[in-house]
Amino acid sequence: MIQFLEDKPRDECGIFGIYGPGLDVASLTYYGLYALQHRGQESAGIAVSDGQTIQLQKNMGLVAEVFNEDSLAKLRGHIAIGHVRYSTSGASSLINAQPLSFHYLRGMVALAHNGNLTNADELRYSLGATGSVFQSTSDTEVIVNLIARYGQNTIEEALMKCMIDIKGAYSVVVMAENKLIGMRDPLGIRPLCLGKLGESYVIASESCALDTVGALFEREVEPGEIVIIDEQGVHSIKTMTAAHKALCIFELVYLARPDSVINGEAVTIARREMGRQLAKECQVEADVVIPVPDSGTAAAVGYAEASGIPFKEGLMKNRYIGRTFIQPSQRMRDIAIRLKLNPIRQVLNGQKVALVDDSIVRGTTSKKLVQMLREAGVKEVHMLISSPPILYSCFYGIDTSARSELIAAQNELEEIRKYIGADSLHYLSLDGLFAAVKGTAKDFCTACFNGSYPVEVPEQIDLTGFERRKC
Amino acid sequence: MIQFLEDKPRDECGIFGIYGPGLDVASLTYYGLYALQHRGQESAGIAVSDGQTIQLQKNMGLVAEVFNEDSLAKLRGHIAIGHVRYSTSGASSLINAQPLSFHYLRGMVALAHNGNLTNADELRYSLGATGSVFQSTSDTEVIVNLIARYGQNTIEEALMKCMIDIKGAYSVVVMAENKLIGMRDPLGIRPLCLGKLGESYVIASESCALDTVGALFEREVEPGEIVIIDEQGVHSIKTMTAAHKALCIFELVYLARPDSVINGEAVTIARREMGRQLAKECQVEADVVIPVPDSGTAAAVGYAEASGIPFKEGLMKNRYIGRTFIQPSQRMRDIAIRLKLNPIRQVLNGQKVALVDDSIVRGTTSKKLVQMLREAGVKEVHMLISSPPILYSCFYGIDTSARSELIAAQNELEEIRKYIGADSLHYLSLDGLFAAVKGTAKDFCTACFNGSYPVEVPEQIDLTGFERRKC
Amino acid sequence: MIQFLEDKPRDECGIFGIYGPGLDVASLTYYGLYALQHRGQESAGIAVSDGQTIQLQKNMGLVAEVFNEDSLAKLRGHIAIGHVRYSTSGASSLINAQPLSFHYLRGMVALAHNGNLTNADELRYSLGATGSVFQSTSDTEVIVNLIARYGQNTIEEALMKCMIDIKGAYSVVVMAENKLIGMRDPLGIRPLCLGKLGESYVIASESCALDTVGALFEREVEPGEIVIIDEQGVHSIKTMTAAHKALCIFELVYLARPDSVINGEAVTIARREMGRQLAKECQVEADVVIPVPDSGTAAAVGYAEASGIPFKEGLMKNRYIGRTFIQPSQRMRDIAIRLKLNPIRQVLNGQKVALVDDSIVRGTTSKKLVQMLREAGVKEVHMLISSPPILYSCFYGIDTSARSELIAAQNELEEIRKYIGADSLHYLSLDGLFAAVKGTAKDFCTACFNGSYPVEVPEQIDLTGFERRKC
Amino acid sequence: MIQFLEDKPRDECGIFGIYGPGLDVASLTYYGLYALQHRGQESAGIAVSDGQTIQLQKNMGLVAEVFNEDSLAKLRGHIAIGHVRYSTSGASSLINAQPLSFHYLRGMVALAHNGNLTNADELRYSLGATGSVFQSTSDTEVIVNLIARYGQNTIEEALMKCMIDIKGAYSVVVMAENKLIGMRDPLGIRPLCLGKLGESYVIASESCALDTVGALFEREVEPGEIVIIDEQGVHSIKTMTAAHKALCIFELVYLARPDSVINGEAVTIARREMGRQLAKECQVEADVVIPVPDSGTAAAVGYAEASGIPFKEGLMKNRYIGRTFIQPSQRMRDIAIRLKLNPIRQVLNGQKVALVDDSIVRGTTSKKLVQMLREAGVKEVHMLISSPPILYSCFYGIDTSARSELIAAQNELEEIRKYIGADSLHYLSLDGLFAAVKGTAKDFCTACFNGSYPVEVPEQIDLTGFERRKC
Repeated sequence: MIQFLEDKPRDECGIFGIYGPGLDVASLTYYGLYALQHRGQESAGIAVSDGQTIQLQKNMGLVAEVFNEDSLAKLRGHIAIGHVRYSTSGASSLINAQPLSFHYLRGMVALAHNGNLTNADELRYSLGATGSVFQSTSDTEVIVNLIARYGQNTIEEALMKCMIDIKGAYSVVVMAENKLIGMRDPLGIRPLCLGKLGESYVIASESCALDTVGALFEREVEPGEIVIIDEQGVHSIKTMTAAHKALCIFELVYLARPDSVINGEAVTIARREMGRQLAKECQVEADVVIPVPDSGTAAAVGYAEASGIPFKEGLMKNRYIGRTFIQPSQRMRDIAIRLKLNPIRQVLNGQKVALVDDSIVRGTTSKKLVQMLREAGVKEVHMLISSPPILYSCFYGIDTSARSELIAAQNELEEIRKYIGADSLHYLSLDGLFAAVKGTAKDFCTACFNGSYPVEVPEQIDLTGFERRKC
Repeated sequence: MIQFLEDKPRDECGIFGIYGPGLDVASLTYYGLYALQHRGQESAGIAVSDGQTIQLQKNMGLVAEVFNEDSLAKLRGHIAIGHVRYSTSGASSLINAQPLSFHYLRGMVALAHNGNLTNADELRYSLGATGSVFQSTSDTEVIVNLIARYGQNTIEEALMKCMIDIKGAYSVVVMAENKLIGMRDPLGIRPLCLGKLGESYVIASESCALDTVGALFEREVEPGEIVIIDEQGVHSIKTMTAAHKALCIFELVYLARPDSVINGEAVTIARREMGRQLAKECQVEADVVIPVPDSGTAAAVGYAEASGIPFKEGLMKNRYIGRTFIQPSQRMRDIAIRLKLNPIRQVLNGQKVALVDDSIVRGTTSKKLVQMLREAGVKEVHMLISSPPILYSCFYGIDTSARSELIAAQNELEEIRKYIGADSLHYLSLDGLFAAVKGTAKDFCTACFNGSYPVEVPEQIDLTGFERRKC
Repeated sequence: MIQFLEDKPRDECGIFGIYGPGLDVASLTYYGLYALQHRGQESAGIAVSDGQTIQLQKNMGLVAEVFNEDSLAKLRGHIAIGHVRYSTSGASSLINAQPLSFHYLRGMVALAHNGNLTNADELRYSLGATGSVFQSTSDTEVIVNLIARYGQNTIEEALMKCMIDIKGAYSVVVMAENKLIGMRDPLGIRPLCLGKLGESYVIASESCALDTVGALFEREVEPGEIVIIDEQGVHSIKTMTAAHKALCIFELVYLARPDSVINGEAVTIARREMGRQLAKECQVEADVVIPVPDSGTAAAVGYAEASGIPFKEGLMKNRYIGRTFIQPSQRMRDIAIRLKLNPIRQVLNGQKVALVDDSIVRGTTSKKLVQMLREAGVKEVHMLISSPPILYSCFYGIDTSARSELIAAQNELEEIRKYIGADSLHYLSLDGLFAAVKGTAKDFCTACFNGSYPVEVPEQIDLTGFERRKC
Repeated sequence: MIQFLEDKPRDECGIFGIYGPGLDVASLTYYGLYALQHRGQESAGIAVSDGQTIQLQKNMGLVAEVFNEDSLAKLRGHIAIGHVRYSTSGASSLINAQPLSFHYLRGMVALAHNGNLTNADELRYSLGATGSVFQSTSDTEVIVNLIARYGQNTIEEALMKCMIDIKGAYSVVVMAENKLIGMRDPLGIRPLCLGKLGESYVIASESCALDTVGALFEREVEPGEIVIIDEQGVHSIKTMTAAHKALCIFELVYLARPDSVINGEAVTIARREMGRQLAKECQVEADVVIPVPDSGTAAAVGYAEASGIPFKEGLMKNRYIGRTFIQPSQRMRDIAIRLKLNPIRQVLNGQKVALVDDSIVRGTTSKKLVQMLREAGVKEVHMLISSPPILYSCFYGIDTSARSELIAAQNELEEIRKYIGADSLHYLSLDGLFAAVKGTAKDFCTACFNGSYPVEVPEQIDLTGFERRKC
C-alpha cells in the first residue's frame, strides 16, 4: 500500500480545544477533528482533563480510525484539546503525534501546535546545553521544555515568555488542569478562531469545526493574542503586536476548507473571486470551463461566471480513493491517475477546454491530466491557475516541497507549459490575488509566491531535518 | 461505530470480469472494482482461474481493505471476476459475499451477480425438494444450483437453461476454468458492458471500470445476451429477446457514476439534462442554485444554465466521512448532518435558494438540510428534485426501502413539502425524465415511479427475507 | 511469520455441542472449544440455534482470537455446536472452516465433524453427477449434501441413511433447529463423549471439555450410535454395530489431552503406564530420565518410576511460543529449536540421559534435540519412544504426513538411530502398548503402527487432495 | 477480554542488549526478548543504532505481536537494545513502554530498565524544579533526565553520576550511538548477565536469552558495575561497592526461568533443592506429590525424591490460555480456574495429596485449587509452599500487591490454612531457603519474607502511584 500522491502543498496540522463543563468534551473534540481532517491525515489525538489529571489518546491514522466508542468513553473531563497531523512516512512517526502531554513543576499540561518554529534548532541546542531531553523531533517539544523552564511562573506567564523566545508560525492550544488556552503568533500566520457553544467555548484552526459541533463563531484569535478560558470565562492577553499581519494566503487559495471563514470571509467566496479575477486577467477561447475537482471547483465557477463560458463537470473524482491503495506496477502506471480522476469523453470530446486548478507544485499531475484530456478527445487545453506560481518553499508549517522540486522555481512559464503539455498556461497575478481577497498585501504572508518572508528563516536549511520537525 | 445514513436508494452490487492471458488479471480486477466501489461497500471479492483451478478471496469491507499486495499476488491466473456488494448488517453477511466459487460435475466455476431474482423462493423450494443445499440466503446460490443440475450440459447450455428458469434482474459474470462469460437478463434491467484491453476482454457493470483499467468501451451487453470469451475470442448467444427493454432508469438518475456511459450516453449529461428539463417544468424565483453534493451537482448545473439563476456551492461536503463514524448521542444529534454537509452562511445568508437534489426516499435528510439552511440565514428554500416521486419499492436489485417508508408513497406533495419544511417542492415529471434521456418509455423500467413492474413480483413479499436475499 | 514446525501427527479437529435451555450456550461452547484447542488451531466456529434460526460465526485463528464479547453476545439461543480445526496453509482455508450451516428442505441445520471419510471422492462424484454443488473441499460437505438428498426423511432418518453411505472415521455433532445430535462411526475411531450439566446435555470430543464447562461425564458415545437430545431428553439410536471397535490408539499416545478420559481411563495414566512398559522392555544405563516436554512427561515419569532412574526436567519449554513467530534466517537456523526448547546445562552436563518422547514422525526435531543435548555436555543420549514406530499413514483424520516422509517407514532402526544421532534408540512394542492401555488389540485402530486398516482405504491416494479434504 | 488473574508476584521487566557488527541485531534482540517474555507481557520494544541514528519500535503486546518481518527489517544497525514489560491496565500504558529513546546534548541515546528507584519522587521533584519535563510516569525517565543534566560529561561519566543520585533496584542497558552499556545497582537486586556470540557481546536479564541467541554465558554483571562494549571490546567500571549483595531471592523461587543461571546455579536445580529442603522440614503423610504446574513442578520433583512419595501430574494446564479470554459471567465463575487447570480425577480420586506450589500471595487461587481437588475426590490436601510466607511488599521492581492484600501479612498460618481449605499447610523456612541456594543470608534481598529492606524505602508509599511508576 502506498500514499496517493497529490501535487499540492500540504497543510501540517489542525487543532481544536473545548472548555465545556457538563459537555461530552471528548466526543465534541472527535467531531471537531473530523471537520479538520483535511488539515492532517497522518495521526490524530485527544487529551482530556477532569481538573486533576489529563488523559491522552493518540495514534497513527484518521480520526475515525484512531478512536472508537470505547476509547472516547474513557476520556472523561470538562476540557479537551485535539490535533490532526499530516501524513509523513517513517517508523518513528507516532513519537511526533500530538497532543503532547507532560508533567512539570506545576502539574500536568497538554499542548497541540499548528505551525513551524524557525528558531527551533537554536532553542533545542540551548535547552539541551542546560539539560533538556527531547524524545521526538517535533519543534512542539521545544515549547514544552520552555514552559517547564518557566515553571516558577504561572502557565500564562510562561507562555508569554515563550512567545518572546520562539519565532515563526504557531497557533497553539494548551490545556492545563483547569483551563484552556489558545495562542497565536504575532503575525497570525496560521489561522485560529474562537467560538461559543452555550456557556462553553471552543478554539479551532478553522470555523468549519465550530459549525460542526454547533458552536457559534465569535471571532478570530488575534495575532499575538493569548486567550484563556476557565471558570471565570474568557480572558485575553495581547502580548506582542507586529506592525502588520501575515496570514498565510495559501490558506485561502487551497488549504482551508471552502466553508470556513478566515480573515473575515468564507473561503469559497474568495476562491470564486479568484476565478473571476483570473477571467479579468486572461480570457481564453474555450467551449467549456472544467474544474480539477474538488479544489478547483469554486474558482472554475467564478471563471465561468465572469467569462460567460459554460461550466461543466468533465473530470469524475472517485470518492472512494482513500489514503492508500495498491500501487499499480510500472506496466499499469496510467491506472493511478485514472483511478482517481476519470475524464468524461462525451463531455470533453472535440472541445476546447479551460481547465481550472488552484496551484501547481511539481507539475507531474497536471502533465498527466492534460495527457488524459487529450486522449479523451479534447481539442485544446488551456490551463488556468487561480494563484501565482509557487517560487519559494514555506518555512511556516506548510510542506511545499524543496525549492528544487518546485517547477515554477526552476522553469520559465513557457517551459512549464511545454512540460505539462497545455496549449496555454495562465497563472493569476499576485495583484489579482490580492484583489480577490479582503485586505491588502501587508495583511498576508505571500512568501511562497514572492519570497518575502515575514519571519527570518535559517540560512542553512537542512530540509530533511526540517521536514521531520514541522508542525 | 454505525453506518452513515443516506436517504438514497442503494445499488446492490457491481461486477467485473477479465479474460487476459499475460496480464495481471487480479490487479486489474482490483482496480476495476475500485472504480465500481459506489455500487457496493459491504464486501469485495476476486476469483482467479489459471485454467486448472480457481482461487477466491473475499471479505467484508472496501476493496482497499479486503486486498493487499500479498493477497493479490497470490491470485495468479489469466481470468478473473470480481464483485462489490452494498452494506447490510448482520453477522452472517460474509456468507453472502461474492463471487461464489464451487465445484460441480464439470469442474470449478465462479460466479458474481448484480440484480435480484423474483422467483428465487420458488426455485429454492423446488431445488431443495430434490436435494439441494443452500449455505447462504443469496439468490445467487440458486443460479449456482441450477448450473449444477444442468451438469450434463456445457456451461453455456446450462446458463441458457438457467435463463429459462430464473426471472427478474440479473447481470452476471461467470468464470469456468478456461472461459469468461457475461449474461444479462432479457429486459436488461441492470447495466453490463464489454470492453477491449489490447487482445484481452473486460466485462463490467459500468464503463467507468473499463476506463480505469485502460480498456476501450466496445458495447453494452444486450438484454438476453450471453457473451463468451475464451481463447477463440468473443462469442455471443442471443437467447431470449423481449418485446421491449427495461433498463432501470434510476441508474441514470442516481445509481451509476456520472462518468459511465449507459444506454449510449454519459450519465452526467443525462443528469444535466434532467436539470434543464426541471427548469422547463418549473422556474422558481431564486437568487442562487445550490446542489446537494455530490449527487445533485450535475442537475443543479443544468438547472442553473436553463434558468439563468447563478450556480453556487453552498453546502460543503466533508470528504473524510467514511462508511462509519461514532454516532452522536441524542444530545448531539444535529452533529451527524453537519458533520457531513456544512452550509456556507456567507453564500446563503439572506438568499432565496433553489436546492437541487436527485431524489427523496424517506425525507428525513431533506428535512434536516432545509432546517440547516434556514439556520444559515436562507430566506426561502425551493426544493427541486430531478426525478419523479418514488412511489413503489424495487424488486430488481435496488434497496428503495419498504413502501411504508417511502414518503411519497404515503403522502401528498403538499404534505411532503410541509414535512421537509421547504417553501416549495417540485419533482421532475416522468415525461420530463424521458425527455432528458435517450430512448422512450418502453426502453426503461420505471416501476419505482409508476408501479409498472416489467417482471411479475411475488404478491406476498417478506421484505426482511427479501432484503437478505438481494444481489 | 511462519508456523512452528512440530514433528508430531496432528489431530484434525475437536467438536462440541450443548443443548441447554436457559443457559448461555454460546459462552459455554466458547469455553468448551478452549479446552479442545489442542485438537485444532487453524479455525474456530460456533453455531447457535434459538429454535427458529441458526446463527453462525467462524473464522481463522484460535478460539480466543475468533470470538470477543460482542460477537458471543450476538449468538443467542438454547442449542449450540462448535468446532476447532487444525492449521493448514492456503488462502482458501476459511471456506473449509466449520461448523457448516445450511438450509435444506426441512429447514436449517448446522454440523461439525471430526474424522475423515475414506469414500468421500466417490460420494462427491455420484452426488455431483446428480446436481450437487460443493463450495469447499471438505468431506463434511458430502455429509451435508447427503442429508439434503434425504430431505424427505426426518433428520434422524437422514443421518441413519448417511451412515450407510459414508465410510471412514467420523464423530459428528449436528444441530437442527430444535435438537442436538451426536453421531459416531461404527468403529468408534475418533472419540466422542456425553456429559450432563444440570438438566442440560453436552457432547464433546474429549471429556476435558465437559470438565471445563462443569458438566459431569456420563459416558462415551458408542461406536455406531446416534444420540439425540431435545426437549424430551436423551434418546439413542444404535445403528450399525461392527464386530469390533477401532479407537485410534494414537489418541492415547499423543493426541488427546492428558486429563481426558478415553476408553474408560485417564489418558495421563495410560501414558505413565506406557513409560513403565517401556522400562520393562528396555532398561538403559542412564543417570537421569529427561522428558521432551510436554508430551513426553507422563511417560518419562512412568519410566523413571519403573526403572528407578531419577526424573528431572532438563529441557525448558518456552511457554510463550505461539502459533507463529518470525522465522530465523538460514544463518540463525539453530535459534528456532532453542527458542522453543532450551537444554539446562547444569542438569545435563556430564550425564547419561534417557530422553523420553512419545513418537517420532520425520525425525528432524529429534535430531536437533539430540545435537543440542550433546552441546549441553550430555555424555550419552538414549532415546526412548513410548509407542511403536510409525510405519503407515493415517486415513482417518490424522495428519501423519505422507509415507515417504515417515522416517520409520523408510529406514531400519539402526539407520534412524544414526540419523538422529542418539547412542541408542528404543521404541515401545505394540504388545507393550496394548499392555499399557485398557482393552486388547481388537479394540483399537493401530494402522499407523502395523498397517492394519479397519476401513478400506483408496488404493490411489492423492495426498495433496487428501490433506485438503480432511476433517 | 480480561487478564487471567495469577496469584503470583509479577516480575516487572526483562532487558536485552547486543553489540554485534555484521549481525542482524534487531532479529537477535527479537529472539532474546522472546526468551525473556515471562518477565513482562504488556509491551515490547527494540531500539537499534547504526552508529549515527537510533530507530525505535515499541507497542503494547507480546513480542510476537509487536514485531513482524517488515518492522524488524527496518531496524538496521549494529547495536540494539530491547525491553519487555509486564501487563498493567490503563490507556496511558504505551507512554510507559520501553526502551526510551531521546536526544540530548551529546546526541541520541536509548535506554531500557528493569527494577524500581526508591527515590524517584524526590528526583522528579528536584529535576522538575529546575525545568525538567516528564512525559511518562516511569521512573526510567528520571534516569534519562539525569543523563541529560550531566550532558557535559561522557555517557559513562554521566551514568557514574546517576548511580550516585539514584537509589533502589536497577539493571539497565543503555545504547549510545556507538556503544552498548550495561549497569547494575550496587546491591545487584535484579539479575543481569553478559554473554559472547562470536566476536559480539550480549547483555541480558537472564542467561536463557543468551542460550536462545546462541551466545555463551560469560559472567553475571557485578553489583555496582558498569560494562561498556564498543569497537575496542568490553570495558568495565566498578563504581560503588556495597558491603554485601542483595540479589532478589524471589528470582530463584519463582520469577526467573528454570533454565537460567543466576547467582552461579541453574534456577531449576535451586528449586528442586527447595523441594528437598521442604521434605526435610516437613514430611506429610500423602499418597502422591502433585505440583501446581508449571511453577511448582521442580520443587515437587525435589519433594518427591526426598520424601519417597511418588510424583504424579494431577493438574492439567491448558497450554492455549493466553493473556486474555472472555471473562465468565458470575454464573459461570468456576469456569475460569478449570479453564486453566483441570484436575485429573482418576489420578486424584481417594488420594491423600501433597500439593506443591512455590508461593501464595492473596490465596484466592489456592483456595479454588483446593476446592477443585476435593471435588475431584481427593481425600486430604497438604499444601506445601517451597518458600516462606510473603509478609512485606517489594519496592524494588516486583509487583507483590499491597501489604493489605498479602494473606500471610494479615493472617496467622492456621487462618490461612482454613481460608484455603487445606488439611495442612507448610511453608519452607527462610533458613531452609538459604540452605537450598548458593550463598548466605547476606547475599540476598529477602525483604518480602522478613521486611529487611536493603535500600531505604519511602515511609509514605502511595501505592497507586508507585505501581504506575515501577519498571
